[in-house]
Amino acid sequence: MIIETKYRSLIKAITWRIIATLTTVALVYMFFGRLELAAAVGGLEVLLKLLFNFLHERAWLFIKFGKKKMEPFVLWFTGLPACGKSTIADLVYNQLSDRELEVERVDGRDVRKLFPEVGFTRQERIAHLKRVSHMIRMLEKNNVSVVASFISPYKESRDEIRQMIKENFIEIYVKASVESCKRRDTKGMYLRAEKGEIQNFTGISDVYEEPRSPALVLDTETLSAEQCTQQVINYIEKHLLKR
Amino acid sequence: MIIETKYRSLIKAITWRIIATLTTVALVYMFFGRLELAAAVGGLEVLLKLLFNFLHERAWLFIKFGKKKMEPFVLWFTGLPACGKSTIADLVYNQLSDRELEVERVDGRDVRKLFPEVGFTRQERIAHLKRVSHMIRMLEKNNVSVVASFISPYKESRDEIRQMIKENFIEIYVKASVESCKRRDTKGMYLRAEKGEIQNFTGISDVYEEPRSPALVLDTETLSAEQCTQQVINYIEKHLLKR
Repeated sequence: MIIETKYRSLIKAITWRIIATLTTVALVYMFFGRLELAAAVGGLEVLLKLLFNFLHERAWLFIKFGKKKMEPFVLWFTGLPACGKSTIADLVYNQLSDRELEVERVDGRDVRKLFPEVGFTRQERIAHLKRVSHMIRMLEKNNVSVVASFISPYKESRDEIRQMIKENFIEIYVKASVESCKRRDTKGMYLRAEKGEIQNFTGISDVYEEPRSPALVLDTETLSAEQCTQQVINYIEKHLLKR
Repeated sequence: MIIETKYRSLIKAITWRIIATLTTVALVYMFFGRLELAAAVGGLEVLLKLLFNFLHERAWLFIKFGKKKMEPFVLWFTGLPACGKSTIADLVYNQLSDRELEVERVDGRDVRKLFPEVGFTRQERIAHLKRVSHMIRMLEKNNVSVVASFISPYKESRDEIRQMIKENFIEIYVKASVESCKRRDTKGMYLRAEKGEIQNFTGISDVYEEPRSPALVLDTETLSAEQCTQQVINYIEKHLLKR
């Protein structure tokens, strides 16, 4: 958080008062041609405007008009393994972090590293996402927006975090067929899952429950990651960043 | 985050310009007694000062003087079960949340509820606090200060989070003897631990490694929770909130 120190406010007020009063003195001299009176007007102006400006600032502290709470939001990217979620979420995050808002990136892969003992059964996945949701809610509650990407295959888990975040939860379905994800899968996870070397693999040996009414659907079979990112940014600017 | 909309800034600038220019006109009229010339000075003043004020604001955008980054901090309360950590941390949090800073409260008890399957062996405690530390670091990284209270019996765990947060990590040792904690323990945990009904209980069947150089030591055997809270607030005001 960048704060303005008292010294900065004071020095800035003084430089402005000098410019403003010199302007007044110059104007009065221009009209009346009497420097000593122009200077006297300037002297009185300094005193009066210091007082009036102080009162004006204090009065505005009590006026609510035009103050707006900028709500943090949670972008939740869901989709099959290797559908392109993390890539797009990274690009969106990079664009958002250039703006004046607190934003954090949370990715399934990174969080999993902290929980090496948690497996991929339905029960474990649900408990895992419940904890992740609490963490994200904590960030959002403190005005930090979150760009999250998790396979999050079950409607139950996604509904739980939606309940926590309410209207600022933006579900983004990164849509691609199993075939196209397989082609994109550089780590060969799909192949290993088909051979049975990985259990409970979403899309092969575990279900992916498609979102019913996501805020956005990104079709990574026909659009590039950059095009999808632009779709997300457009949505954010239209619905979340309007002032 | 509360933002000031463009409308508010505009209306505030207009109300100030009206007050300021009326003051100038009144002053000029007072000195020279010619209303039509006083009005002309006022008219020109409005135009010139709009321009000059704009230039003055733009120039200050490039001046770094007096801008200060307000660093978030992590208060880490450590101590035996029932030593008074949570009570004091709650009181400190309440006082901090009244101020203009983002602050979050994280308590061992609440976090444990999200991890019902994690036990209390040395290994499990360390893995648990590692995850908690990552969450807290994420908050701190996004300018959210954290009031954390965890038994955190091992130096290793506390050093790990200190490494993450660096100089903004404030270790607070809530100190009380096992005997005095026992008296304070309304839930009868110590009794159950002594009977062997609870395993790995810090202070009875597991070690508590005292902090070697905590930023603060709160002696809950001789001081009330309110007195300890005041000690913490004094420390914060002296070291963390100075402007």
